Amino acid sequence: MIFSDRLIRAIQEKKSALIVGLDPHVSLMPPRIVRGIDSGDRVEVAQITRAFCLNILDVVADIVPGVKPQVAFFERLGPPGFEVLEEIVEAARSKGLLVISDCKRGDIGSTAAAYAEYHFEDAGGSGAKGLGADAITLSPYLGEDSLAPFAKYVPDGRGLFILAKSSNSGSSDFQDRSIEYEGQIVPLYQAVAQLVQKISDKFPVGEFGYSPVGIVVGATFPEQAGLLRDRFPRLYFLVPGIGAQGAQPDELRGCFNEDGLGAIINASRSILFAYRENEADSEGKYWQDAAREAAVALRDSLNAAIRSG
Amino acid sequence: MIFSDRLIRAIQEKKSALIVGLDPHVSLMPPRIVRGIDSGDRVEVAQITRAFCLNILDVVADIVPGVKPQVAFFERLGPPGFEVLEEIVEAARSKGLLVISDCKRGDIGSTAAAYAEYHFEDAGGSGAKGLGADAITLSPYLGEDSLAPFAKYVPDGRGLFILAKSSNSGSSDFQDRSIEYEGQIVPLYQAVAQLVQKISDKFPVGEFGYSPVGIVVGATFPEQAGLLRDRFPRLYFLVPGIGAQGAQPDELRGCFNEDGLGAIINASRSILFAYRENEADSEGKYWQDAAREAAVALRDSLNAAIRSG
Repeated sequence: MIFSDRLIRAIQEKKSALIVGLDPHVSLMPPRIVRGIDSGDRVEVAQITRAFCLNILDVVADIVPGVKPQVAFFERLGPPGFEVLEEIVEAARSKGLLVISDCKRGDIGSTAAAYAEYHFEDAGGSGAKGLGADAITLSPYLGEDSLAPFAKYVPDGRGLFILAKSSNSGSSDFQDRSIEYEGQIVPLYQAVAQLVQKISDKFPVGEFGYSPVGIVVGATFPEQAGLLRDRFPRLYFLVPGIGAQGAQPDELRGCFNEDGLGAIINASRSILFAYRENEADSEGKYWQDAAREAAVALRDSLNAAIRSG
Repeated sequence: MIFSDRLIRAIQEKKSALIVGLDPHVSLMPPRIVRGIDSGDRVEVAQITRAFCLNILDVVADIVPGVKPQVAFFERLGPPGFEVLEEIVEAARSKGLLVISDCKRGDIGSTAAAYAEYHFEDAGGSGAKGLGADAITLSPYLGEDSLAPFAKYVPDGRGLFILAKSSNSGSSDFQDRSIEYEGQIVPLYQAVAQLVQKISDKFPVGEFGYSPVGIVVGATFPEQAGLLRDRFPRLYFLVPGIGAQGAQPDELRGCFNEDGLGAIINASRSILFAYRENEADSEGKYWQDAAREAAVALRDSLNAAIRSG
């Protein structure tokens, strides 16, 4: 099934546009689970990371449509980190969660093909085993031919989210600059969205009218998000920047279409490490409960914001 | 010692501006070494990849200043691939070769910090073991704050090469577009170089007058390379695109300054798989000799081109 349909069915089933980012910062994990580990031993850190992420999957699997592992935190641990990443992805998929590999890869030709194979192929594929993610984040700087090897997997049900307007303040350095693109002067982030639209036009939209090829749009820039929403109604948005990065749920209305669809909102630290907001639980004894409660609360706030939109 | 000084000393010692890209495509490896392996078994593929890369290091270590492993081909193999990557990097460094981790990472905040730690920290560092590369390639789309966590390692002798003008034809999609940047209308690739110059200004240049913070400039675009060379004389260029991608040595003159310095030229497939140019050695019986001969010939052509410049 086309990725956007799989995504929207999962959103409707869970009644949630919230996805949980798996950013397993060891330094933020509950003291009670990291006490005694050797932070210089990456095998030990990987074991804690595995346990932490599996516990998170347990408490959010029934309330979100998917998760977004941030590959950097696994890559940080080298080979044992990639082993854990693969286990987490498999565990998430076996719980019916969609998995977005957040790796922001961007390279050319056969190199891009190697990245696409790793992130999209799975044990059942024709080549060596891969991560088997449902979707991936990509960087557009190298242009359309760098995205093509990933787009090749769209007919197999995979999705792409290409960086248009990122959530960091440095995103203004280049992304907001005006460039001439196809005869118009537009900000670079919009030119990127136009290229994504062009790529998405090569594939049919799904039953809900959305393309499996979407864009990353930071919650921290509601004005740009609204502009992109108006001009690219069929592109799904992956929206980071809520919670720890500062954006509030009611600022996200503009990311959604009138059908209440069109965006998935990612929160990572504000869910994973919610126990830190409770001074009475400095040890993180109830960290899983805190994570689930934070996810439920954010899901509900988002649903309220969407309904009021 | 500052990265640019380490690099230039190695270039002078080897009398070579050529570096060898480690892009271990299994499908291009000599039939005699891949015969019988199960291409669907990534542990077996990783073993062959290890042997192949170690053999390449053996035959090029005395004639080039460094190597550039393309991380995608190792990531393709998951955990065993990263194990091999780490072994190759260690082997290269023990042979006195500089290592440029070609990963084109680009992300924000703590995520960028995690990538920087992995690629730059080594076994002797304070945290968990990392890859211990001497330099890294980065993507600029997310702006200056996404590059800062990598620049933090410059005082430790690490180098950065930030994508300005890439070697693929799709690089024209965005990189050649005119944008307004600091009061001037310039192509995006030049604006990126200006940001890199700004970052490089935070660090002293080395004894040869070059910054440890440089840019990636495709050999396939000599006009843009010449423009960048003129405007950014202190930035070192990492130049891909020669050989298999089509650029010829004499097109590279414009990448160098009058001192004969300022650029390292990467060749990958045209060296690693040089045996394929010899019809009499279809089995690759003499593939290591062919690789060394191709590297020597290209080094000599480059030196001739630099002298004539």
